[in-house]
Amino acid sequence: MNKPYVVGIDIGGTNTVFGLVDARGTVVASSSIKTGIYPEFDQYIEALNEGLQTLMKTNGAEGQVHGIGVGAPNANYYTGKIEHAPNLVWKGVLPLAEALSSKVGLPVSITNDANAAAIGEMTYGAARGMKDFIMITLGTGVGGGVVCNGSMVYGFDGMAGELGHITARRNGRLCGCGRNGCLETYCSATGVVRTAYEFLEARVDEPTLLRDRENLTSKDIYDAAVAGDRMAQDVFEFTGKVLGEMLAEYVSFTSPQAIIIFGGLAKSGDMLMKPLRESFEANNMPIHKGKVKILLSELKEADAAVLGASALGWEAK
Amino acid sequence: MNKPYVVGIDIGGTNTVFGLVDARGTVVASSSIKTGIYPEFDQYIEALNEGLQTLMKTNGAEGQVHGIGVGAPNANYYTGKIEHAPNLVWKGVLPLAEALSSKVGLPVSITNDANAAAIGEMTYGAARGMKDFIMITLGTGVGGGVVCNGSMVYGFDGMAGELGHITARRNGRLCGCGRNGCLETYCSATGVVRTAYEFLEARVDEPTLLRDRENLTSKDIYDAAVAGDRMAQDVFEFTGKVLGEMLAEYVSFTSPQAIIIFGGLAKSGDMLMKPLRESFEANNMPIHKGKVKILLSELKEADAAVLGASALGWEAK
Repeated sequence: MNKPYVVGIDIGGTNTVFGLVDARGTVVASSSIKTGIYPEFDQYIEALNEGLQTLMKTNGAEGQVHGIGVGAPNANYYTGKIEHAPNLVWKGVLPLAEALSSKVGLPVSITNDANAAAIGEMTYGAARGMKDFIMITLGTGVGGGVVCNGSMVYGFDGMAGELGHITARRNGRLCGCGRNGCLETYCSATGVVRTAYEFLEARVDEPTLLRDRENLTSKDIYDAAVAGDRMAQDVFEFTGKVLGEMLAEYVSFTSPQAIIIFGGLAKSGDMLMKPLRESFEANNMPIHKGKVKILLSELKEADAAVLGASALGWEAK
Repeated sequence: MNKPYVVGIDIGGTNTVFGLVDARGTVVASSSIKTGIYPEFDQYIEALNEGLQTLMKTNGAEGQVHGIGVGAPNANYYTGKIEHAPNLVWKGVLPLAEALSSKVGLPVSITNDANAAAIGEMTYGAARGMKDFIMITLGTGVGGGVVCNGSMVYGFDGMAGELGHITARRNGRLCGCGRNGCLETYCSATGVVRTAYEFLEARVDEPTLLRDRENLTSKDIYDAAVAGDRMAQDVFEFTGKVLGEMLAEYVSFTSPQAIIIFGGLAKSGDMLMKPLRESFEANNMPIHKGKVKILLSELKEADAAVLGASALGWEAK
């Protein structure tokens, strides 16, 4: 019998990574194309199709791929469309599932990046066997995926789980979504940098490795914190505190067994996790205290996005 | 063929109301006992059983009741127990489902009041046909019920949907749960009264019908607002604003088709609903604006709690 495969595609603003995945969740082979260099969406779909055909042919998987799962920004599971994604060059509403499916000749199912990560974690990672958990991805922005009763929560319109846009500070920092105080403006990689600049301005006389640096990144701040820089450590303390507060809000909402954290900032170790866990427990309702686990993703970073998206390929039809 | 019934029980701190409900959702007959007058939980179960037996006998429903559904404060759907309910005279963990089931000889399923209301609304009320909606009950406190993918969200430990304890104001008013700033401290009947006292203190020179009244109630404030009292109107304006902000947070979380409002304050009409709807739309993310309905409960207030609880009786086993 032929071995069944799925294809997972992770569409980012810069790169589109795609991989061939077997039923055990092994990424057998993967490849990528640049996302941003195609002025027209059709040209991009054409290039992506070529890449996929080559990948399947090279690995002897032709005719054995069950379906394609895609994780993409602002992707709507119900409509199969990408809706107004700020980080992509093509504007408006893009019929991704339909365009890709008719070109490749395979069923395509799409969802946003964080939901794809949640499905990956449930299928292959830290959430195996869990029916109620929350996924949170800490990247340039903050994404969320909510699983209740063993099912991904897409919501009425396919756009549920915008956990990066729960308000952390009423009338707080201006967010890309046009509102103020969203969690994403504090606890994403860019949020961490904003915090550092705020601290630099508020504590003008304090010596710190962060001062007079141009284009600070969250990595710079992490390195300074590891090197013992007080202000940089305070940035992580603050980030963990705010994130812990908000994860406690999520618990009041759906009472998950665990919250799984994924993405660059999640690799900051105790620098982030210690204040996060303290703040989380301090802010949980008494009925939830000590009950909810905070776990780090168990998916290998390089594979996670493709793997998560691919899990959706098994149910594509 | 015998007509099938269920029994719905609504346990409140003061009264316990129970009714016989047919398959069409008609409360055929109902009765009640006082909740707080039994020093021992066993005595209460004994009295409740007597009441139920009489109700079933009087209405010729003996042997035709499929099951019993109970809505009670801090009730855990999974364990069948009431856990540390602050408004009941019996402390600790109470094995309600087991005690009642063995006494009455019928299967018993329990959940908290707001979840019961959500199930009632889904079965007989404003949420018929909806698979994704949120129920919010505005009473002495604020309760929540979350339905996703057509299923009640109980969460991992049976205590999901504590929407009254999502933080409306960081470091805000002290809540009965021991935390600060919970929605419940602003948008419940008691929260409205707290707002009025705050306004009275902050605006000492302003003439208002609310001043020098002892034991203000939310009803007094509503009456004053209707009579044209500026401060009382401002109290409702503020309450609607805060509630609208928080309902928008709920939308980012599970993207419901509608949010259904139930309880005393919901009867305040435009005094509450106008600022609420304005604040809700202003605070929704652009992708959700104009898409999510805010509806009032369609269940008759007198029947709603019993009806909601009874719907759970159909699945009790």
